[in-house]
Amino acid sequence: MTPDFTVKALALLGSTGSIGTQALEVVRQQPGRFRVAVLSAQRQWELLVQQAREFRPAAVVIGDESLRGPVRAALADQPETEVLAGPGALAEVVTRPEIDVVLTALVGYAGLLPTVAAIRAGKDIALANKETLVVAGELITSLVQQHGVRLLPVDSEHSAIFQCLVGEELNPIEKIILTASGGPFRGRSAREMEAVTKAQALKHPNWEMGAKITIDSASLMNKGLEVIEAKWLFGLDNEQIDVVVHPQSIVHSLVQFADGSLKAQLGLPDMKLPIQYALGYPQRLANTFPRFSFLDYPTLTFEAPDRAAFPNLELAFGAMRRGGNAPCILNAANEIAVAAFLREEVGFRQMSDLVAGCLARVSYLANPSLDDLIQTDAETRRAATALVAAT
Amino acid sequence: MTPDFTVKALALLGSTGSIGTQALEVVRQQPGRFRVAVLSAQRQWELLVQQAREFRPAAVVIGDESLRGPVRAALADQPETEVLAGPGALAEVVTRPEIDVVLTALVGYAGLLPTVAAIRAGKDIALANKETLVVAGELITSLVQQHGVRLLPVDSEHSAIFQCLVGEELNPIEKIILTASGGPFRGRSAREMEAVTKAQALKHPNWEMGAKITIDSASLMNKGLEVIEAKWLFGLDNEQIDVVVHPQSIVHSLVQFADGSLKAQLGLPDMKLPIQYALGYPQRLANTFPRFSFLDYPTLTFEAPDRAAFPNLELAFGAMRRGGNAPCILNAANEIAVAAFLREEVGFRQMSDLVAGCLARVSYLANPSLDDLIQTDAETRRAATALVAAT
Repeated sequence: MTPDFTVKALALLGSTGSIGTQALEVVRQQPGRFRVAVLSAQRQWELLVQQAREFRPAAVVIGDESLRGPVRAALADQPETEVLAGPGALAEVVTRPEIDVVLTALVGYAGLLPTVAAIRAGKDIALANKETLVVAGELITSLVQQHGVRLLPVDSEHSAIFQCLVGEELNPIEKIILTASGGPFRGRSAREMEAVTKAQALKHPNWEMGAKITIDSASLMNKGLEVIEAKWLFGLDNEQIDVVVHPQSIVHSLVQFADGSLKAQLGLPDMKLPIQYALGYPQRLANTFPRFSFLDYPTLTFEAPDRAAFPNLELAFGAMRRGGNAPCILNAANEIAVAAFLREEVGFRQMSDLVAGCLARVSYLANPSLDDLIQTDAETRRAATALVAAT
Repeated sequence: MTPDFTVKALALLGSTGSIGTQALEVVRQQPGRFRVAVLSAQRQWELLVQQAREFRPAAVVIGDESLRGPVRAALADQPETEVLAGPGALAEVVTRPEIDVVLTALVGYAGLLPTVAAIRAGKDIALANKETLVVAGELITSLVQQHGVRLLPVDSEHSAIFQCLVGEELNPIEKIILTASGGPFRGRSAREMEAVTKAQALKHPNWEMGAKITIDSASLMNKGLEVIEAKWLFGLDNEQIDVVVHPQSIVHSLVQFADGSLKAQLGLPDMKLPIQYALGYPQRLANTFPRFSFLDYPTLTFEAPDRAAFPNLELAFGAMRRGGNAPCILNAANEIAVAAFLREEVGFRQMSDLVAGCLARVSYLANPSLDDLIQTDAETRRAATALVAAT
């Protein structure tokens, strides 16, 4: 441990999800580095209580207000932990003075408002909620600049690019290359994609993640959202972002500089590494995670994504190029589509049709305010829900 | 061009060799960035004169003093270019006040003394002469610290590691992985190696280089020398250096940090990129070199080196572990062995036997001074020459 590392106080939003539980594993493995100040969950109150027992935060927030009672009862004998409920509470706790870093590991659009509140309060953001930048990239990046906070990516691809950019502040990016595993359906034709089932889509070859992102990975919408996220995180033009399919998920992404040199970050597919990097930044903390070895991965392969079999990638690039509220429409339509797919109300390919349908139907705004985006999100969800009902 | 880039004055030692001519190509492609102040060659005086005509340096040095006359005559009508000759002249011109960066692209041990002179004069070194660090790593690195100069690697592997380390000053290295193409004889057994010819050994699959380094690449001695070079450049323990064979020569090397994350630098095998990086550092200069694409390299492979078929790698690791003047012995014996192989006086495998023989014969010194190393070099050359004569 270098002596100048101060203990960082963390607010973990979405602490019971995949990223949240892995973040707590990182905290556990780095005694003396981090203090958990806030934990939050939407509905998994029993795990939230268990985490609160272990980490003794100053506050826990349960998103679903109907669960406030059980959480309060379960933590009645732990008076140092305040129990709050509802989205308003989340936007309030992240602004508390003792917090250094807010990890936004909420699922989907729900991450937007607490992230805005945290940035306005001057907190560094460990961003595990890509939808925030997809929906409101322009607004968020200008807020980040205005408040002088750090936006530290947690997505493995963006963490890779961020790691490759340290020390390169003088050097313009020529392009970035986001790697994609290709998901469980890599190599299938557009026609074969018609028949895929929920169970197949939920089986990702390399990464263990929540249901929403697993479906998004199978449909390449996740990569599409990451493209838009990358644009805002790294201040790129639309033409500066490439996607390459890399089934082994070892090269997490690459940056090509103005001299043609590429830098890549590599490692085993383990989200704890980018989580730890974001929380510890700028220091890399020594750990005992399993190490990568070329002897286990003697062959790394790369191929162009199949844009016919996976139309979501093109939809996302299209929404990015269109700008304005188009990415917000893309995201909201996709959230409804994935939820409907998980309820087995629509087929796999229909998810893309729903997104395309919403992009065609919902009114386009070239320069939306935050309020406009909130309305676009709501309007898109209504439109998408109606489209689901009509199938 | 960023406005704060000042024109750098270069001394190019070994300007007629492979690295030297490519350095001049970089200078040509970056008008307004560099000024060539000194050019030097050992024997290729006609090319040296031609380069002097184009770049109008303040001085040229011809190493072989018998060629002073022709060079002087050829440049008689170019009075702004002083013509000097001999190794003493080289050690003098690099100290001149107008010089910012000295590129040491001399072949072999001959690079040592001018490099020492340049460091003592406070010049940044673009190091293309790995033998300097192999022979006198401890002395050179302490001189570099003492005089506060930069030691900028030009070898593609070391440039890769250097590029991966920018911005990571806070973060300890866990290990580095040097990639090796494996050369033209990759996959051959120890027995098959007995029969290889000079013409086969001079045919490198990926890199176009001078004869000495091409033979060293075929025998993996080049990788062994690079291992020792890396130890000194990056301040590593012997156990922190791995070698992996990567036949495509796209991943130029990797660094693994204390958190298990790896960073790699990639690109087409083109020495102009690391040369330009070293000369332009810390800025990456925009250029029109061909760009790497995964579509051209869909498969990258990695394998452990065959230490039985290529005993030089083990000899080099052994010399590094032994320390003292052992790497100096290794290098001098190898220079004599390669020269004898190129004259077809010894076979391919005998080169390793010669090196091992010298390591066993020449007196070991644990803490050699620069003078001791000069003597070790001379003693080893005598011993190796005697061994060649006895075959």
